[in-house]
Amino acid sequence: MESKAAKSLLSLVRMPSVGWSSALQHRHAGAWNMLTVAVCMALLGCLQAQELQGHVSVILLGATGDLARKYLWQGLFQLYLEEAGKGHSFRFHGTALTSTKQGQEVIAKVLESLSCPRDTAPSRCAELKAQFQQLSEYHRLKTPEDYLALSKDIEARVQHEGLREAGRIFYFSVPPFAYAEIARSINSSCRPGPGAWLRVVLEKPFGRDHRSAQQLATELGSFFQEEEMYRVDHYLGKQVVAQILPFRDQNRKALDGLWNRHHVERVEIIMKETVDAEGRTSFYEEYGVIGDVLQNHLTEILMLVAMELPLNLSSSEAVLGHKLQAFQALRGLQRGSAVVGQYQAYRGQVRRELQKPDSFHSLTPTFAGVLVHIDNLRWEGVPFILMSGKALDERVGYVRILFKDQAYCAQSEKRWVPAQSHCLPQQIIFYIGHGELGGPAVLVSRNLFRPSLPSASWKEVEGQPGLRLFGRPLSDYYAYSPVREQDAYSILISRIFHRRKDSFITMENLLASWVFWTPLLDSLAHEVPRLYPGGAENGHLLDFEFSGSHLSFSQPPLEQLVLGPDSAPMPSDFQVLRAKYRDSPLISAWPEELIARLAGDIEAAAVQAVRRFGKFHLALSGGSSPVALFQQLAMGHYGFPWAHTHLWLVDERCVPLWDPESNFQGLQAHLLQHVRVPYYNVHPMPVHQRQRLCAEEDQGAQAYAEEISTLVTNSSFDLVLLGMGTDGHTASLFPQSPVGLDGKQLVVLTTSPSSPHRRMSLSLPVINRAHKVAVLVMGRMKREIAMLVSRVGREPRKWPISGVLPDSGQLVWYMDYDAFLG
Amino acid sequence: MESKAAKSLLSLVRMPSVGWSSALQHRHAGAWNMLTVAVCMALLGCLQAQELQGHVSVILLGATGDLARKYLWQGLFQLYLEEAGKGHSFRFHGTALTSTKQGQEVIAKVLESLSCPRDTAPSRCAELKAQFQQLSEYHRLKTPEDYLALSKDIEARVQHEGLREAGRIFYFSVPPFAYAEIARSINSSCRPGPGAWLRVVLEKPFGRDHRSAQQLATELGSFFQEEEMYRVDHYLGKQVVAQILPFRDQNRKALDGLWNRHHVERVEIIMKETVDAEGRTSFYEEYGVIGDVLQNHLTEILMLVAMELPLNLSSSEAVLGHKLQAFQALRGLQRGSAVVGQYQAYRGQVRRELQKPDSFHSLTPTFAGVLVHIDNLRWEGVPFILMSGKALDERVGYVRILFKDQAYCAQSEKRWVPAQSHCLPQQIIFYIGHGELGGPAVLVSRNLFRPSLPSASWKEVEGQPGLRLFGRPLSDYYAYSPVREQDAYSILISRIFHRRKDSFITMENLLASWVFWTPLLDSLAHEVPRLYPGGAENGHLLDFEFSGSHLSFSQPPLEQLVLGPDSAPMPSDFQVLRAKYRDSPLISAWPEELIARLAGDIEAAAVQAVRRFGKFHLALSGGSSPVALFQQLAMGHYGFPWAHTHLWLVDERCVPLWDPESNFQGLQAHLLQHVRVPYYNVHPMPVHQRQRLCAEEDQGAQAYAEEISTLVTNSSFDLVLLGMGTDGHTASLFPQSPVGLDGKQLVVLTTSPSSPHRRMSLSLPVINRAHKVAVLVMGRMKREIAMLVSRVGREPRKWPISGVLPDSGQLVWYMDYDAFLG
Repeated sequence: MESKAAKSLLSLVRMPSVGWSSALQHRHAGAWNMLTVAVCMALLGCLQAQELQGHVSVILLGATGDLARKYLWQGLFQLYLEEAGKGHSFRFHGTALTSTKQGQEVIAKVLESLSCPRDTAPSRCAELKAQFQQLSEYHRLKTPEDYLALSKDIEARVQHEGLREAGRIFYFSVPPFAYAEIARSINSSCRPGPGAWLRVVLEKPFGRDHRSAQQLATELGSFFQEEEMYRVDHYLGKQVVAQILPFRDQNRKALDGLWNRHHVERVEIIMKETVDAEGRTSFYEEYGVIGDVLQNHLTEILMLVAMELPLNLSSSEAVLGHKLQAFQALRGLQRGSAVVGQYQAYRGQVRRELQKPDSFHSLTPTFAGVLVHIDNLRWEGVPFILMSGKALDERVGYVRILFKDQAYCAQSEKRWVPAQSHCLPQQIIFYIGHGELGGPAVLVSRNLFRPSLPSASWKEVEGQPGLRLFGRPLSDYYAYSPVREQDAYSILISRIFHRRKDSFITMENLLASWVFWTPLLDSLAHEVPRLYPGGAENGHLLDFEFSGSHLSFSQPPLEQLVLGPDSAPMPSDFQVLRAKYRDSPLISAWPEELIARLAGDIEAAAVQAVRRFGKFHLALSGGSSPVALFQQLAMGHYGFPWAHTHLWLVDERCVPLWDPESNFQGLQAHLLQHVRVPYYNVHPMPVHQRQRLCAEEDQGAQAYAEEISTLVTNSSFDLVLLGMGTDGHTASLFPQSPVGLDGKQLVVLTTSPSSPHRRMSLSLPVINRAHKVAVLVMGRMKREIAMLVSRVGREPRKWPISGVLPDSGQLVWYMDYDAFLG
Repeated sequence: MESKAAKSLLSLVRMPSVGWSSALQHRHAGAWNMLTVAVCMALLGCLQAQELQGHVSVILLGATGDLARKYLWQGLFQLYLEEAGKGHSFRFHGTALTSTKQGQEVIAKVLESLSCPRDTAPSRCAELKAQFQQLSEYHRLKTPEDYLALSKDIEARVQHEGLREAGRIFYFSVPPFAYAEIARSINSSCRPGPGAWLRVVLEKPFGRDHRSAQQLATELGSFFQEEEMYRVDHYLGKQVVAQILPFRDQNRKALDGLWNRHHVERVEIIMKETVDAEGRTSFYEEYGVIGDVLQNHLTEILMLVAMELPLNLSSSEAVLGHKLQAFQALRGLQRGSAVVGQYQAYRGQVRRELQKPDSFHSLTPTFAGVLVHIDNLRWEGVPFILMSGKALDERVGYVRILFKDQAYCAQSEKRWVPAQSHCLPQQIIFYIGHGELGGPAVLVSRNLFRPSLPSASWKEVEGQPGLRLFGRPLSDYYAYSPVREQDAYSILISRIFHRRKDSFITMENLLASWVFWTPLLDSLAHEVPRLYPGGAENGHLLDFEFSGSHLSFSQPPLEQLVLGPDSAPMPSDFQVLRAKYRDSPLISAWPEELIARLAGDIEAAAVQAVRRFGKFHLALSGGSSPVALFQQLAMGHYGFPWAHTHLWLVDERCVPLWDPESNFQGLQAHLLQHVRVPYYNVHPMPVHQRQRLCAEEDQGAQAYAEEISTLVTNSSFDLVLLGMGTDGHTASLFPQSPVGLDGKQLVVLTTSPSSPHRRMSLSLPVINRAHKVAVLVMGRMKREIAMLVSRVGREPRKWPISGVLPDSGQLVWYMDYDAFLG
């Protein structure tokens, strides 16, 4: 429909804003429109194009605040410079609670201090600023009526100037407690008319944990559609962070084979600060370093590194979908996944600023190191180290991907050529900023590959002799920095305008992040952080190490100044106790030692059985106590003859095997996935046949009994692991359901007092035929029954556990001190 | 029975040999005995003790040869010094083919040049040597009669001196071709009488491959019991190598948690030589670097590092048993497991020394790097790098265990303290000798732990300023060297005497090693090794890298001087070909690309199915072609939704699931062990029920059909992977057994023309109900049938594959160029 002439005008209008046309256009919004109309009159079709783009109102809430003055006005100016020449008209409304006069003064000052792109001549810059000032104004926004008035004002102006309204951006630069009220007012009184879009921009914090984030999300969700909301994490606007996905995309060929657990040794995602929290302790007491930095900035970066790379990066939906998938693969954090610290001056600062008594000891961490694992095939086993802290020795932020050293260099190391040898470290570093390099950069070891970066926006870093980064001189890297350093907010404001939702935090993303972090925050709530002096004085005090999923400080603490609830002395030199219980051997110890001992005994039995008979038949119980045992067996027993071990179930709930309640599920998750037991050596109980659960007519119990008789010599298991319930039940043999206590049946269907009620269980006779029976009893809750059972005779109808007494095999009780000593 | 007085005499006799008693004792064997008797007469019971120990004859065969002159006589002298004071009497018989006179002269010269322990006074040394010379004599041993004469001589002397014969040691320091003859003579004419032991000591090479080693073993086995044979690998006598197991034992506490795949980054086992093979090419042409060094020395060291540590190191049996177990866990070597080289001058040397024409190109490697993996829970995934070569830049041997860096140091690296920081390398090095350190040593990084070594035999190494080893200054290590450097042969001779069989190579051990190495040697037989200049000129030419199980040189070769059979140009730029075959899409490519393409297509289908239906039903065929596919899927497809994938079998042989012939076994070994498919999503065919194979009355086919109908919507698999036999069969539907080609049965029992004949198979109708069917055809052998099937119509009775045509799904043919283009 466009004529050739109109097209050429459009191309003129789309020229960069620092050209002739924009200089003419922006004298005044009204005049600009008149002028455009005038120019367009001469060139048919132009008006139509102009109308298609429409008018955009940007409302900056909290326009006189810190963030707005420092970054947001500059970002809006940048948006204007970039976009005004491309057909949209703009107006910028700064608003706050401040009186009109005072607000206007503040804004005028801010607008005066705006800066132009580096290569702009001063006179040209003054001109551009003047145009922007003309388009900017201050409103006091307090009551719903104020919002309504603003809305009317926008509509009237649009109408008056013959424009079409394209949309409104509301940028919330206000404290979160004000969000709901403002959101309500916008929703009820300040939405644009039909056909125009609404975008609201929200700044963190988005809650303090999953519950509060969910609450906030629900609240805002009653006013705005999810697609209308842009939650800012300004790290996603940092040039180097914003480059991570494009870098992965543009270097697919080189990275495709490298970006996985076979090649990546570790990933470090680090943000170190030298400043402390002084003056901000009221905020900091609420959020701590995890809520302030790790849950948001570092987690977002983690996702950019770890997520599967979509084929098409330009699809926000694909990017967000893949990111969310990566969240699903995060392994849950435990207390042992983190180390936390607090700089020594913090307590004093909190007391002063929050007027607390000297007896007040803040437990808020100002330093945290966290070990994250991602349980998918790409990343399984690769440690992702997240670390941030205040009052550290340097200010720096970076992501470091260190590759495995998979080379052997045949010559003596004296003869290696630094930037070439494959035996020297190979790494990719996204250097977010500051630090010894002094600015953002992307570094790739020269012995890795020569990266491709868009040459229009990235240039090679000039050499800085003597500078070493991550163990190697700078000259060992291909190093690129941005041609033009840009502020994160400018980048993000442009992306809001271009509806790049993937640069923002969706609600799903936000809640997924809180689901991940909240258990750790809960478990740390009463933990005393390690105190550190601050600055370079920290020495090695904050160094940490990992083993499996567990993190710990490398050095002992300086001094333990505050005793927290977890600091009670542990009698670690308490020996493993050997005694008798019900006339059988009893082994008692702290849980960890007890499990280690039991695992060792099972392994010894396995080795012996395999040596003698070529196989080992092990029947395992479900429940929570065995989980630690399974983990111990999976991780610590390399000599265990798994290939010759048959695994049987002692009992099972009548649920499908894939039900989380299934005993088999626990066995699968904590043991089978980590060791190599052949498929046909695994014997789940057939509780689920023909889509029915434990139906008598499916004869599951009989089938299992037959499987046992066929494979297990004399139906005597080599080892049966039992537990004991607080009611004295064992396996799924319950006092209330006197079945399976005698007779010839090997396997029986029983009824449990607790849900799911239907169970399948080995019978007492088959248990008592085993060569070895181990009963594991752990936890204070078992104290009472343990005491009772120690005194009763053999009364399996009352206490099924009391019927456990192998005919000719050996019974050993394993009880932790809590169960045994109370 | 011993009196107190006898005991005190014994303690006198057991004093170190360099004391008063031994000085008196050893004047002459006869005299010594007389003297002992005289002393003993005064102290009751002594004679009895003396008799208990008895007389030992050592017969050194090849006593005038190189090895004997350089090491063995010295070793025997050492044995004498250590043991003669402890109650045994000795006589040393050097033998050879040389005439008596000439032999005596050589021996006399050798004996004159023996050296005493470092702290022995010269006069004392002369005295000791004189004693030893008195006990040593030369015999010519050529005919069986000579052996008989020697035997008689020994017996006569023993009797004459009133001694009891304890045993005889025959040390074979002769070329292997002479072994059989000598062995026969010893066995027939020179065995000691009843009650005395025989030990024969053999030197490598023990064969050139598994066949020849087996042959040699059988041959020797007809003359000697296994327990009588001591096969020497002199590396096991090197002080540092001999210390590996004791070190692991004495540092159990520190190493227990570290010595596994969770902590070990890699293990390097290296023996570099500067010398070349000049003068030894006739030997070298037969054995090459693998037969000369890797198969024996480096493999033995590998075992000492990798084996499970027995509880009791003093049990030879336990040590040997554990070592043999470690051999079982070695992953088989492929052609891609090694890189080989040959120094440039070698060819010329071979031509000269072996009088070959200029056209002769030796393919014998003089350099090899090999990547070994150990598939057990302790070591899975840890690379063991074995490397050895001639004409390299330095002479050095070492084992280096590099630990994973599992620390994060919170401070800038400028502030790390070298010998403490856990962020610097942590390693244990068994430095076998030579190199920059100039001698044997055990090094442990100071940031790891302080090792425990027996202080009587190991002392701390003195500092050598400026010396760097493995990336760190020597001062960063705890470093220990032997108090007294001992030659490997001296150590081994002593161990033969003490019957420490674990310091030698048992036949089982030897054959296990050859089983491991022979396939690699076979696959290298026609491979052209990379040429390297030799010395420091090699540059990076011999550096290599690994990825998965595959090793390759890091740099392109200097020049390709000889074109071997594998060097034919590969059309790597040949594109993946798309065409039609039987009116369905055909994809053709080189095998690797084809498999990659098929794997990608399966993953895409899986992702799509899981997105739409929440699960993916995949039916897989057995056979060899899918193995590469399984490996590709297991290793390269991180986004594959395994947790939601159900795996079904297309067909199965009527053998137990654990039978190596079972299709399920292939699936388990190459796919299931590497990915996380939940147990209950795996659906093997029920070919083995109630201990019977495919019995009609067990209704296995019906049960599988029912499982399919229940779980797979409409019994339509999402993807079925088929193959095609040279007779046109597919799945287990054979031309000769026209069953399952139509009708309602989903699963059928069929008969194969080849063993095992009984099969279970999906029927053609259920295959044709699939959403997607992929037929994978690979290899030149399939060319003919592929051509034929391309031309025939739908005649499933003749060619079952021609009946594959999905009702509404999609059929794609994947054929490699060999199958498609011939």
